[in-house]
Amino acid sequence: MPRVLVKISYHGGQFLGFQIQNQGRTVQGYFEKILKRMHKRSVRIHPSSRTDRGVHAKAQYFHFDTDLNIEPTQWQYAMNRSLPDDIYVHDVQFIDEDFHCRYDCVGKTYRYSVYQAEHRNPFLSQLMTFESASLDIKLMNEAAQQFVGTHDFTSFCSQKTEVESKERTIYESRVVSTAEGLDFIITGSGFLYNMVRVIMAFLLEVGKGKRMATDVPEILAAQDRNLVPHTAPAEGLYLEKVYLSPESLREDFGEEIKIHYKKSAQNS
Amino acid sequence: MPRVLVKISYHGGQFLGFQIQNQGRTVQGYFEKILKRMHKRSVRIHPSSRTDRGVHAKAQYFHFDTDLNIEPTQWQYAMNRSLPDDIYVHDVQFIDEDFHCRYDCVGKTYRYSVYQAEHRNPFLSQLMTFESASLDIKLMNEAAQQFVGTHDFTSFCSQKTEVESKERTIYESRVVSTAEGLDFIITGSGFLYNMVRVIMAFLLEVGKGKRMATDVPEILAAQDRNLVPHTAPAEGLYLEKVYLSPESLREDFGEEIKIHYKKSAQNS
Repeated sequence: MPRVLVKISYHGGQFLGFQIQNQGRTVQGYFEKILKRMHKRSVRIHPSSRTDRGVHAKAQYFHFDTDLNIEPTQWQYAMNRSLPDDIYVHDVQFIDEDFHCRYDCVGKTYRYSVYQAEHRNPFLSQLMTFESASLDIKLMNEAAQQFVGTHDFTSFCSQKTEVESKERTIYESRVVSTAEGLDFIITGSGFLYNMVRVIMAFLLEVGKGKRMATDVPEILAAQDRNLVPHTAPAEGLYLEKVYLSPESLREDFGEEIKIHYKKSAQNS
Repeated sequence: MPRVLVKISYHGGQFLGFQIQNQGRTVQGYFEKILKRMHKRSVRIHPSSRTDRGVHAKAQYFHFDTDLNIEPTQWQYAMNRSLPDDIYVHDVQFIDEDFHCRYDCVGKTYRYSVYQAEHRNPFLSQLMTFESASLDIKLMNEAAQQFVGTHDFTSFCSQKTEVESKERTIYESRVVSTAEGLDFIITGSGFLYNMVRVIMAFLLEVGKGKRMATDVPEILAAQDRNLVPHTAPAEGLYLEKVYLSPESLREDFGEEIKIHYKKSAQNS
């Protein structure tokens, strides 16, 4: 049965998250409804990442298996025609039957966008996070760099995280200034529950002078979430890129990087 | 009893409109809830414009009367603290007791934003209207200019419009290109139900070469909505500016313009 790989983007503001729920708007819910109508039976989709409520995706992937004789461009057309305005299918292709969007995902890039202004802007609500306090972007970038490498991220994830290992490898982690304020960009082998938002909350404290870049190694070593009490809001967070092969990751970060394979792992 | 004038902006995407309803999110609903809590009784607010579902406002005004002894900056602070992220109070001031936001409004500017791209962008959904067809902006601007002056707009409003006179004066009407596509900017003494969206739908037809600028006088004269069958979606429409005095309107459009006073009128 052919396996179909779908590349999508979505504005997360009006979704309860990617994952289907008993009720309410979810990205998975919209696609499975369309696929059920087309197949006259339930078809499960498998994403690279289950983004949380309010989190956006500029590039997200999922796959599904089908016995319908439909060409990729026709799949794309059929889906886009039935989807709401806040989801878009960019690309559809057939892929090997042993490929799996979750287990073949070897890396992801997230972007967290902050706008700086004297007061809130309703037209940026749900797209960027507002911060009126002045922030030292250079210090934030220095702190962000401290996360590069392989670390146990217990101190920087939700205490509800249930995975065997909290060790992850970060390939890039930096803060750049933008027209509106700043972006935090982080690429890693995988991310624990709320990890980017907890790191972002910490970086904002660094930007305000309340924490220091040099605190990071100690906090990582302590493996204690109580040392980083905040979580930045979901609205500024974008899943920006998904690496579906070791080659694509090596292309961006060098031949010598450590690749994590998840073929048998249960975490994201 | 002091009269308070409030200047606000809001992202209309998640509102049923300005006007309060029995249930659902409305701009008026949020403000009247806050005022009721502060006054321990119902307080009615009076806006310059009742924008429709999905329509945005960059600058909208309302007034209310109060017997509370609260300074303007404290009003602003108290309201912003209780409002959701998609509404913001820019300014609060005391105003003459005979001033009325609706009847003293002598003009309004609306902006309609269109983005042009090969495919839909989920991150612009609810902020701009998508148009993939190529558009001749010069022709659209020529057509837009035809609306300047005093005309009966029966052909360019909803057939549900119930007002005594459908005559309105347009002070400016133009189409400009933007980084994303184009904006239609129109300032008039007042606007009938759906009027900007019906004119916009017509201008898009002109941009595609289906209608001509020279058609406008004839369609206006016919006073027949069937000649302009479409209505552009709400999401690209912004209430951009409200003129609350003849002086402010003359400042922008010249001393000789015809001012419409609405002290006794029932339309917007």
